[in-house]
Amino acid sequence: MKSTELSVDTSLQQVVDITDDVAGFVRGAVDGLLSVFALHATAGLALIETGSGTEEDLVATLKSVIPRDDRYLHRHGSKGHGADHVVPALVSPSLVIPVKGGRLTLGTWQRVVLVDLNSDNPRRRVRLDLLSG
Amino acid sequence: MKSTELSVDTSLQQVVDITDDVAGFVRGAVDGLLSVFALHATAGLALIETGSGTEEDLVATLKSVIPRDDRYLHRHGSKGHGADHVVPALVSPSLVIPVKGGRLTLGTWQRVVLVDLNSDNPRRRVRLDLLSG
Amino acid sequence: MKSTELSVDTSLQQVVDITDDVAGFVRGAVDGLLSVFALHATAGLALIETGSGTEEDLVATLKSVIPRDDRYLHRHGSKGHGADHVVPALVSPSLVIPVKGGRLTLGTWQRVVLVDLNSDNPRRRVRLDLLSG
Repeated sequence: MKSTELSVDTSLQQVVDITDDVAGFVRGAVDGLLSVFALHATAGLALIETGSGTEEDLVATLKSVIPRDDRYLHRHGSKGHGADHVVPALVSPSLVIPVKGGRLTLGTWQRVVLVDLNSDNPRRRVRLDLLSG
Repeated sequence: MKSTELSVDTSLQQVVDITDDVAGFVRGAVDGLLSVFALHATAGLALIETGSGTEEDLVATLKSVIPRDDRYLHRHGSKGHGADHVVPALVSPSLVIPVKGGRLTLGTWQRVVLVDLNSDNPRRRVRLDLLSG
Repeated sequence: MKSTELSVDTSLQQVVDITDDVAGFVRGAVDGLLSVFALHATAGLALIETGSGTEEDLVATLKSVIPRDDRYLHRHGSKGHGADHVVPALVSPSLVIPVKGGRLTLGTWQRVVLVDLNSDNPRRRVRLDLLSG
């Protein structure tokens, strides 16, 4: 199993497109299944189109579904942080993408994004583990 | 890694049961992990019971959580299409199912479904990649 | 592929931390990808922090997003059971975790939990399948 870890800066965006880094990791590899895994309890990974507004639409949807107010038992850090802890149950931090001939088998508009509404920690780690076969 | 691609027609249903096709692909295979991967930015995959109304209940839930109105930045195609682009963040297009002795290890009531509320494109592609071990 | 099945008792909690059992299964194994798979149509798996209230916050969020009332076509068992059947579309019963040197590569606060709001059946089965590489 070939592995690496990405460092992702979320200080400027809550939805960060990491597709190029993920594609770079599998370039030249043989076929296999790639695990993309965010090492945090307040972040998720998703496959969406980017650059046309869906990043903002996703953040607005999550804020509507998991309101950033004082309703949560889990309270510490910034206001709304209890909501951050619910996010990974709906947007999983674990994702598997097939690799064929050293390329991610993504559809035309699919991009890999890290979803992180937590502003308290802007440095995020994402593992990549490719199991070949 | 053994691979194929399914073509799924969503013109009649927004939640399509693809279990039989997926099970047929792994029949006779040895043990391994099967990746089921929808190649679209407006579709997801889920494991639910089918035939008892949950398909419609799921569509109603998604329409409630991600309303099909004009709130989205991502606008093109039919009304509500911005909502379609948020769906795969909550219902992931990537799913892994273990295979033992050529059979999917599903629970009694679990079926594999493609979830696609987007009426603009009724032809959908789903990759199947089996990594044996 | 190395496999086992866990039996999880959900009679006391709707969100059950199964991390220790999962970690025990991969102890001593070589590297690989671990599939964690709940064999039920009304349960899901998630990676969240436990012990600080997020379990309850997640249950409250799910009850808000998928209200336990009579709106569902799928009706049988206890009141709200139609909602239980929608849960696995949002909280998938399929999860993949990388394993390195016989350890789950979880982040500091990540725990593996079974999410099951269905009170009709307190005995749940979770498969573990480790594909080494």
